[in-house]
Amino acid sequence: MTDDITPTADGAEVSPDEAAGRARLSRRGLLGLAIGGGVAGLALGGVGGYALGAARVGEHDAGTPYAFFGAHQAGITTPVQEHLHFAAFDMMPRSDRDDLIELLQDWTYASARMTQGLEVSATGAVGGPAEQPPDDTGEALGLPASHLTVTIGFGPTLFENEDGDRYGIRDRRPPLLQKLPPFLGDDLDPASSGGDLCIQVCADDPQVAVHAIRNLSRIAFGRAKLRWSQLGFGKTSRTTAQQQTPRNLFGFKDGTANILADDTAGLATHVWVASGDGADWMAGGSYLVARKIAMLIETWDRVQLGEQERIIGRDKGQGAPLSGGEEATAPDFSSAAIDTASHVRLAHAAQNDGVRILRRGFNYVDGNNTLGRLDAGLFFLSYQRSPEQFIALQRTLSTDLLNEYIRHVGSGLWAVPPGAAEGSYVGAPLFA
Amino acid sequence: MTDDITPTADGAEVSPDEAAGRARLSRRGLLGLAIGGGVAGLALGGVGGYALGAARVGEHDAGTPYAFFGAHQAGITTPVQEHLHFAAFDMMPRSDRDDLIELLQDWTYASARMTQGLEVSATGAVGGPAEQPPDDTGEALGLPASHLTVTIGFGPTLFENEDGDRYGIRDRRPPLLQKLPPFLGDDLDPASSGGDLCIQVCADDPQVAVHAIRNLSRIAFGRAKLRWSQLGFGKTSRTTAQQQTPRNLFGFKDGTANILADDTAGLATHVWVASGDGADWMAGGSYLVARKIAMLIETWDRVQLGEQERIIGRDKGQGAPLSGGEEATAPDFSSAAIDTASHVRLAHAAQNDGVRILRRGFNYVDGNNTLGRLDAGLFFLSYQRSPEQFIALQRTLSTDLLNEYIRHVGSGLWAVPPGAAEGSYVGAPLFA
Repeated sequence: MTDDITPTADGAEVSPDEAAGRARLSRRGLLGLAIGGGVAGLALGGVGGYALGAARVGEHDAGTPYAFFGAHQAGITTPVQEHLHFAAFDMMPRSDRDDLIELLQDWTYASARMTQGLEVSATGAVGGPAEQPPDDTGEALGLPASHLTVTIGFGPTLFENEDGDRYGIRDRRPPLLQKLPPFLGDDLDPASSGGDLCIQVCADDPQVAVHAIRNLSRIAFGRAKLRWSQLGFGKTSRTTAQQQTPRNLFGFKDGTANILADDTAGLATHVWVASGDGADWMAGGSYLVARKIAMLIETWDRVQLGEQERIIGRDKGQGAPLSGGEEATAPDFSSAAIDTASHVRLAHAAQNDGVRILRRGFNYVDGNNTLGRLDAGLFFLSYQRSPEQFIALQRTLSTDLLNEYIRHVGSGLWAVPPGAAEGSYVGAPLFA
Repeated sequence: MTDDITPTADGAEVSPDEAAGRARLSRRGLLGLAIGGGVAGLALGGVGGYALGAARVGEHDAGTPYAFFGAHQAGITTPVQEHLHFAAFDMMPRSDRDDLIELLQDWTYASARMTQGLEVSATGAVGGPAEQPPDDTGEALGLPASHLTVTIGFGPTLFENEDGDRYGIRDRRPPLLQKLPPFLGDDLDPASSGGDLCIQVCADDPQVAVHAIRNLSRIAFGRAKLRWSQLGFGKTSRTTAQQQTPRNLFGFKDGTANILADDTAGLATHVWVASGDGADWMAGGSYLVARKIAMLIETWDRVQLGEQERIIGRDKGQGAPLSGGEEATAPDFSSAAIDTASHVRLAHAAQNDGVRILRRGFNYVDGNNTLGRLDAGLFFLSYQRSPEQFIALQRTLSTDLLNEYIRHVGSGLWAVPPGAAEGSYVGAPLFA
């Protein structure tokens, strides 16, 4: 993030529209973030040319920031980062359509800045007047963009809930955007399920990820409220062949068979919503499923190595299918070495009529319970062209040997709209 | 961590003593970790020469592993890593002196291995028989040591609790190792306070840190139980001048005036226990204070920038004292620019008869409460030659302007013994 910002040095970034927008937002009791014409005025989007020279590179390898604007939202096929901060929000009771649109504009504005290593507004943490609270909370000052991505989704309840059609978008609801059906093994806690909106933040520095969710929550003040949130680490999937296959907290490699970012055909078939899929405003978007999966790791740790491998269907060291070969070798499900109820078999496209999903999960540890057991597991995230893909896979997994060692304690489904064009905002097609 | 270990390839590490020790531990229903004479047999200690070539370097910058054995335990003056997993343990009800000694030997053995990028035992996650649970849980396979340090401490209750002198060490208790006195603003939760033992694990990869606490908890099975634990990130202190001063979740630089690792005289005066300090077995050790400090960040975020700076006594951008200069400039407390109740003044050695401590804290975020506020703050860790240093500073801070925005919700004090020599174990002088 930029450090040392002074109003003078940074003033060149502020367009008249921004200044006007800022005043308007301030009157609404919000944070005073510039929005509206200011987004175009800032010429964000492509990575080049913008004021990134001002972003200090700290001790981390910053890498090149990921573009926020584009055909698809970043954070889906983007190489999976090291850290996750996920947050679900509910709109405030008396909020209206204008509030929702303005919130999405504000989130777009701030996210576009933060992903480029900038503070949430031109005045940021230290460039504003001493008599006002700073726009930016400041803990990411001096840190690089750290491959930050911000991905925004709309839950079923945004389109209709017990209060009805609050935002005049009920008739634009994708038919398949419904609360997920119950699955065997569900032990869902409402306190980590659902939400009118969600934001998936990923970054290689946890402080940068936390800063983003904190500031986006703050920006939502008066319009939406944080419902639940989850931190994660140690990505359990990869989206490029260059990334090593990571391990989950059962100690096994996870995500070997994921859809990779360069598999254009696979993404078109399995991940991106197409025109004609049922809601045209979603074309170029995707559906995000989140499942908080508690792992009974102490129990698992007492299972014999051979039994662990039978349950997973792969060897623990290399991740090779038990039918032989190496990690990348396709499993031979005709081999007796792979149990018919093993996880690798039941989760495989070959056993699910070719259904595949793009996985993007993270490990989590939330302290421990009173028995002294770590509260740990997998925060499963997957992107798919239709919620039906996840539903079909999850139903197949109902006989998974692994089920004895896991519990699904959180759940959510969100429609993730396509990426925004420069000058527009995430979700604009929904309101067009 | 080493991958692909086979009993054959790795067998050369296993001494006859180890094999014997392994059998003995197995009979006790423990994990089957080699210990006893095996520690010396492994020739751990210095970084050179050992089987580190087998440790795979993943996507992270591994760096050179830190030595586990030495005059002081690692993890005190060691350059502060990116991630923390802290755990407090209670001994099991019927455990005896031999259990405690054996536990410390087992922890030493496993920690010495893990800090060098190895698994907890020679057979590890995949090198043992298929008919037994693996010794190592496996999630760090393929990851480098990641600057892992493991630091072990003894709480007041280890020496005496309501059950009396369980381990025959009451008369060796350092006189000042007592439960910390109450302080103004304490709102302590027993569920995040105290503990017979503590382990501070730091690493640059959270998966490596979590793996260490998880496996050390598992190794403690039947002897000690995890009482509470805390994950942290975004170190809020530095221990070398090369490290940038990090920022806490109030957005301010933190730890500017810390004692640094190359300040031998400062460490001798303020951090390391000397012979004659009251418990000779502690010579070369230190006292660790942990305080979980919840920050009311939403309230703080609404405070005017000028008021925030007045409270802290430094400017938010540079971290310079309000009396002028740059971050490294000594504050001029005769200047009216620094409020007499500002944090920088009250925490400064000049206002505390020269008392200083070595700070090693981390930021934390534990989800959010039902009001939609992030449960966030500072997990404060400090090392000092005597608990009285912390007590004096904390009493001075009773009038700190910052107190309106923080609450102390967890607390603990532990005697951190000196480092172990090769062939010995952490805490051995206590039982000599």
